[in-house]
Amino acid sequence: MDRRLALPALALACLLPGLALAATPYRSPQQILDAAPDNDWRTPDPANLLYMDLPAGRVIIELAPRFAPRHVANIQTFAHEHFWDGTSIYRAQDNFVVQFGDADADDAAKARPLGSADRRLPAEFERASSGLPVSLLPDPDGWAARTGFSDGFAVGQDDKAGRTWLAHCYGAVGAGRNNEEDSSVGAELYVVTGQSPRQLDRNITLVGRVLKGMELLSALPRGPAPMGFYADPGQRTPITAIRRASDVAETERTPIQVLRTDSKTFAATVEARRNRVDDFYKRPAGHIDLCNIPVPVR
Amino acid sequence: MDRRLALPALALACLLPGLALAATPYRSPQQILDAAPDNDWRTPDPANLLYMDLPAGRVIIELAPRFAPRHVANIQTFAHEHFWDGTSIYRAQDNFVVQFGDADADDAAKARPLGSADRRLPAEFERASSGLPVSLLPDPDGWAARTGFSDGFAVGQDDKAGRTWLAHCYGAVGAGRNNEEDSSVGAELYVVTGQSPRQLDRNITLVGRVLKGMELLSALPRGPAPMGFYADPGQRTPITAIRRASDVAETERTPIQVLRTDSKTFAATVEARRNRVDDFYKRPAGHIDLCNIPVPVR
Repeated sequence: MDRRLALPALALACLLPGLALAATPYRSPQQILDAAPDNDWRTPDPANLLYMDLPAGRVIIELAPRFAPRHVANIQTFAHEHFWDGTSIYRAQDNFVVQFGDADADDAAKARPLGSADRRLPAEFERASSGLPVSLLPDPDGWAARTGFSDGFAVGQDDKAGRTWLAHCYGAVGAGRNNEEDSSVGAELYVVTGQSPRQLDRNITLVGRVLKGMELLSALPRGPAPMGFYADPGQRTPITAIRRASDVAETERTPIQVLRTDSKTFAATVEARRNRVDDFYKRPAGHIDLCNIPVPVR
Repeated sequence: MDRRLALPALALACLLPGLALAATPYRSPQQILDAAPDNDWRTPDPANLLYMDLPAGRVIIELAPRFAPRHVANIQTFAHEHFWDGTSIYRAQDNFVVQFGDADADDAAKARPLGSADRRLPAEFERASSGLPVSLLPDPDGWAARTGFSDGFAVGQDDKAGRTWLAHCYGAVGAGRNNEEDSSVGAELYVVTGQSPRQLDRNITLVGRVLKGMELLSALPRGPAPMGFYADPGQRTPITAIRRASDVAETERTPIQVLRTDSKTFAATVEARRNRVDDFYKRPAGHIDLCNIPVPVR
């Protein structure tokens, strides 16, 4: 069942390039990647990369200043001022999230000082679509009128309202908050490790996504207390340091590139996932969900 | 945006009971569960329960004989004949699956004998919808014309073709196969531990789902070899035993009940997930995906 024809003409005009072209012969996403020209890959700005160094290795996060500029600025300040060094991953809830930061943040007597970061930020749940390049997906989505990718980030869109937001896919990084929508400052962050909780879209400020090292977070023992918290501090995973890559000596940086989501290569990998025509698949789906599409990293 | 009205009348007639009724005041899924009458819970048939005993604890799987009768019969035979005792979980691929069974199954010289189980089974990717009770969800789904729950299992449906199949949601258990669609016998099983890989629906035979103990599988260290295999046998997780609950002395069984998915209680939890009206959520989604709905167990 091809539902693309049911999309409005406007959407069709913005589809990922090449999606309408069935590849002949079929190439797998990996084969397509292997043949990608170098200029389909971009090197993220080191000012927008966070290195989260754990005893088991390094997690690399790309921040999304176009979506959450105030939160990203605060996070850059926290990293620059070493706020997170010696803090911990203090929550791992199965099929949902891990959360990290200052486990004593809610205890005024013990909480770490926030340094020169802003104490109050506006909610950054969504932004205007204007001026934002988005490569749209052709398939229907239950959570958003449209979905696609912008600069490597999975997004939802309301085309009538002209709004775009980051989506809660695997690896998305968000800013924990209390009940007030403007109660996040970016000090307590969570990472989606389970089935995409898209019901949180436009309810929490997302700030970026994990590019590398997800398995250092997703395979942590689940916290035994409610919501996956570790009641015993000894069960928490210590965070050695979180730094902006731009604050780290070049010799200690981890080389990394991300496939451009506005490239024909990316569009071809999406189409190869929508319709798998190989010896294993007997019935190509003719569909792919936003959160089933990994954005390749090398 | 309420899309329910766009559903065909036939589907509306079969919707989960109570879905159209907004609960006033809002109760969370947990509050709804806490108030459920005892007869909204069912006790699974112990003949269809598998206990997978690992050094770290017990995983409980409910088999789905209405969907994969031949595979389930084979699996029951394997368990009864202790086929899996001393085998291992030999694969853990991040954001995808763990897989277990005989790591040497592909090596004729080392493979364990299959005992009295059938050596060849038909693919059981889908079945006729007739005679199958399904409580339908009201929201659109990109992978199937309809989705819902049947006896506790997440399913997709093609109402025109009259076919129903188990869906690859978190915790689904499937029978690994080679390229031939009838190459699974139920000896090598996988469990979905990541974002629901619905592209596999109707491409592999699903045989049941994990009711309890997912965190013993989902938090395993990821295998370092391609596709998450453990190249070093020492990294595998040993399986002490897999038994049908009905083969285990009553004193060693684990009491367990599953919420009836055709109950008003379950329908109310689904509606409470579709539209969260509490102090935290600022924008109820008005939608829920099939694989975002856990079937409660106690």
